Amino acid sequence: MAIEHPPQDPEYDARVRDSFARQPFMGLIGAWIEDLGPGACDVAVDRRDDLLQQHGYIHGAVVSALCDNAGAYAAYTLMPTDSTLLAVEYKIHFLSPASGDRLVARGRVVRPGRTLSVARVEVIDPASKGARLIAVSLNTLIQLADRPDRPHGSSEPS
Amino acid sequence: MAIEHPPQDPEYDARVRDSFARQPFMGLIGAWIEDLGPGACDVAVDRRDDLLQQHGYIHGAVVSALCDNAGAYAAYTLMPTDSTLLAVEYKIHFLSPASGDRLVARGRVVRPGRTLSVARVEVIDPASKGARLIAVSLNTLIQLADRPDRPHGSSEPS
Amino acid sequence: MAIEHPPQDPEYDARVRDSFARQPFMGLIGAWIEDLGPGACDVAVDRRDDLLQQHGYIHGAVVSALCDNAGAYAAYTLMPTDSTLLAVEYKIHFLSPASGDRLVARGRVVRPGRTLSVARVEVIDPASKGARLIAVSLNTLIQLADRPDRPHGSSEPS
Amino acid sequence: MAIEHPPQDPEYDARVRDSFARQPFMGLIGAWIEDLGPGACDVAVDRRDDLLQQHGYIHGAVVSALCDNAGAYAAYTLMPTDSTLLAVEYKIHFLSPASGDRLVARGRVVRPGRTLSVARVEVIDPASKGARLIAVSLNTLIQLADRPDRPHGSSEPS
Repeated sequence: MAIEHPPQDPEYDARVRDSFARQPFMGLIGAWIEDLGPGACDVAVDRRDDLLQQHGYIHGAVVSALCDNAGAYAAYTLMPTDSTLLAVEYKIHFLSPASGDRLVARGRVVRPGRTLSVARVEVIDPASKGARLIAVSLNTLIQLADRPDRPHGSSEPS
Repeated sequence: MAIEHPPQDPEYDARVRDSFARQPFMGLIGAWIEDLGPGACDVAVDRRDDLLQQHGYIHGAVVSALCDNAGAYAAYTLMPTDSTLLAVEYKIHFLSPASGDRLVARGRVVRPGRTLSVARVEVIDPASKGARLIAVSLNTLIQLADRPDRPHGSSEPS
Repeated sequence: MAIEHPPQDPEYDARVRDSFARQPFMGLIGAWIEDLGPGACDVAVDRRDDLLQQHGYIHGAVVSALCDNAGAYAAYTLMPTDSTLLAVEYKIHFLSPASGDRLVARGRVVRPGRTLSVARVEVIDPASKGARLIAVSLNTLIQLADRPDRPHGSSEPS
Repeated sequence: MAIEHPPQDPEYDARVRDSFARQPFMGLIGAWIEDLGPGACDVAVDRRDDLLQQHGYIHGAVVSALCDNAGAYAAYTLMPTDSTLLAVEYKIHFLSPASGDRLVARGRVVRPGRTLSVARVEVIDPASKGARLIAVSLNTLIQLADRPDRPHGSSEPS
């Protein structure tokens, strides 16, 4: 990935992956970080029977979960070491049914900020012709300074 | 619930509950329909360790899943028998951390339409003082006419 | 209006009206503050030929301008004296054509905050049957502390 | 502009410009179509004293008006001759103060559709270093078939 936004924290990769891994819900749905760079985070999930909605597509709430995380962690790559972040709001458009076997959400920072950051996310079906667009979102994140994502000395199980 | 919008389908209650029950993902997170009326649908979920994010709150993606369903099924109560619906887009604001043991998403139709419907959803922590507001969303749904949610003659397991 | 949110600044009414009056664009479209209370602001506009779109309705951008201001000034009523605010983002749904002679946008704070506030706005056609809903929005505002909306000592013309 | 989406109507350019010109409100704020292509529409405005807000920047409502039009007309380029369109909803993020002398809103269709289309818009300050991003939006438009934007035989003044 091209480096459009320089990271403040040279250890951002480990910090972001550690935070992602401490989310039990991402484990429940089987999502993982597919790629990571400054201002960029790709999150993926594979089709599983218990992730579907009533017409046999991957549930919109799973697509939302990818957008939420891809946008948040794209922004978190650019934040300082002793910070955490919260999702303020996002808007998601569902463009095509998620009928494939895998989804990849590509989160990119549109505007990094000391307090607020804005990210956009595109969710694609990577195996489909032309990598069909499944969903897009625009996300606002807020940085909480001097509040590390993992409390000092903590060693919660991931 | 007060009946602001008259339903076209007198059997809407069974139709909505049947559709909800055929979503494996709602089963995975343990969500259920708490209340249902014309133009209104409440969806609830209980805290579970595998639904959390890294700070110990119910994950935003679970909150989104409730908003998605409460908005969609509120709109679906007002649609005709042989129809199904798709979520077009929604925007969700996260107002307070979901620290309680249960969440209830209250979906209400703002404007029913032959093609597009708009719903708003409030997610509350029902056990907290004043039923604290956790999230709000505004959702757009599209009705697909002459396309029953459950194919005629089908008997998929729910 | 009922006082759900206590104001920090007892002089909020004069502060909000002064800020509103210093917006030349609100003058251009002829909008005014119709009502004001803690956490609440109603902004109105009358139909004028130069405010229309190509089908003869009041232009969506005028409806958006009302939502923008009603949401922002609803939030600004609850902020301290030496503060200003910026709109972070909003989402607006257009529900019915604005065919009447007047529009009123009713902004209400959903969640006041030290940094971020969330407001919702309903735009109605007050003269239509049942005060028809024309649009709804959800707005995020950010408070900038210690940065008065009107610089001390300034006396710009309004 | 590259042609990603083939137009159905070879006369789309004249149809779009005619519709734009029949909006009195776009005349009031002095906006014009800067560029047009299949699935793409750029709308611009120049700074004017009566377009400002209370801090001396171009008003957010003017930025919204550009987003609204750039998104809608980008989508309208791809629609058939005898159709018109309505804005369903949009979300706009304000990223930087509009302090320059001109704004250009670049609307691009993300997903064209027979009923619904989705567009994204970027508003830039073209004279600033790096063409600074002022705002971004995501817009939903609905096509109304067999309802021409300009009634047959009509000759309203633009």
